[in-house]
Amino acid sequence: MELLKQRILKDGKSLPGGILKVDNFINHQLDSVLMYQCAEEFVRLFAAQGVTKILTVEASGIAPAVLAGYLAKVPVVFAKKATPKTMDRHYVAKVHSFTKDRDYDILVSKEYLKAGDRILFIDDFLACGNAALGMADLCAQAGATLIGMGFLVEKAFQGGRDKIAARLPGVPVESLAIVTALGDGKIELA
Amino acid sequence: MELLKQRILKDGKSLPGGILKVDNFINHQLDSVLMYQCAEEFVRLFAAQGVTKILTVEASGIAPAVLAGYLAKVPVVFAKKATPKTMDRHYVAKVHSFTKDRDYDILVSKEYLKAGDRILFIDDFLACGNAALGMADLCAQAGATLIGMGFLVEKAFQGGRDKIAARLPGVPVESLAIVTALGDGKIELA
Repeated sequence: MELLKQRILKDGKSLPGGILKVDNFINHQLDSVLMYQCAEEFVRLFAAQGVTKILTVEASGIAPAVLAGYLAKVPVVFAKKATPKTMDRHYVAKVHSFTKDRDYDILVSKEYLKAGDRILFIDDFLACGNAALGMADLCAQAGATLIGMGFLVEKAFQGGRDKIAARLPGVPVESLAIVTALGDGKIELA
Repeated sequence: MELLKQRILKDGKSLPGGILKVDNFINHQLDSVLMYQCAEEFVRLFAAQGVTKILTVEASGIAPAVLAGYLAKVPVVFAKKATPKTMDRHYVAKVHSFTKDRDYDILVSKEYLKAGDRILFIDDFLACGNAALGMADLCAQAGATLIGMGFLVEKAFQGGRDKIAARLPGVPVESLAIVTALGDGKIELA
């Protein structure tokens, strides 16, 4: 998506360790108009799949997910990274965070993920694919159908797409901007 | 706001300890259309104030905030509850969480909160007012002007509104639904 690519080139920062800092418009400050345009693109890309629910994970996935949910007129569920004391029965999966270099759990209440749901997973980044596979695990536990995954930014050099293709053959993966290389303050896009 | 009140009466759950569980449409599963309607109401209520930026706190504030940001065509900043390793210089304030009964820090990068900003704070709940006062503290540190606060749900019996009025006289507080009493599975609204 051209608008997002231009914004990454303008305001993204390449940091040591393969980190792309986009906290000017995605991860801390949000460009809500750009996020809306990204959400329109997700809805367009997955329009044929009969999505009944959008799944994301707190916190940076919520903005594009809720905008896509609004446009597609479906509910959005954001997986939690800690068990709220008001959550009774839930599905849980373990995820390794590349950026934070630690494992964490993601949880979804059994009330909000069910057999029969046709789930579109939306998130800010596709890097190693760990959060995406954790989400697929939650869907499998619930018997829900994962119909596709949409990411704002994919870091192609971290192998997430291949890992998803190997574990979830047939599940379409769409990224609105694909970063092919980062380094020395430079950002290369596909 | 009538739609939100009706939804709280239909799907909200009154739990022991003054907790109102609304994870069916706000805190875990999001009704994105209802959130959009709430955002429209926030934008209408604060239209005269010349808002330049919306501030919220991860995670449950993000959905109404980004929708209001989209409608008002202003950026949204969500305060973080942990320091990301990519965040350099930031403002920090301490907040006591009623629901989780513990203290946590909220942080905003100095890059995204500045003197001259006219800030509307949006959040899901107003209870004891601690998160709101922490946000006001961040704005004061930055020299930004807090022009108002909007909440989806206020629990009137926890005193947040009075605490804000005492500490921030003249800052308007708007809640779209006001809960006057909780208990025995019953929810009373103003």
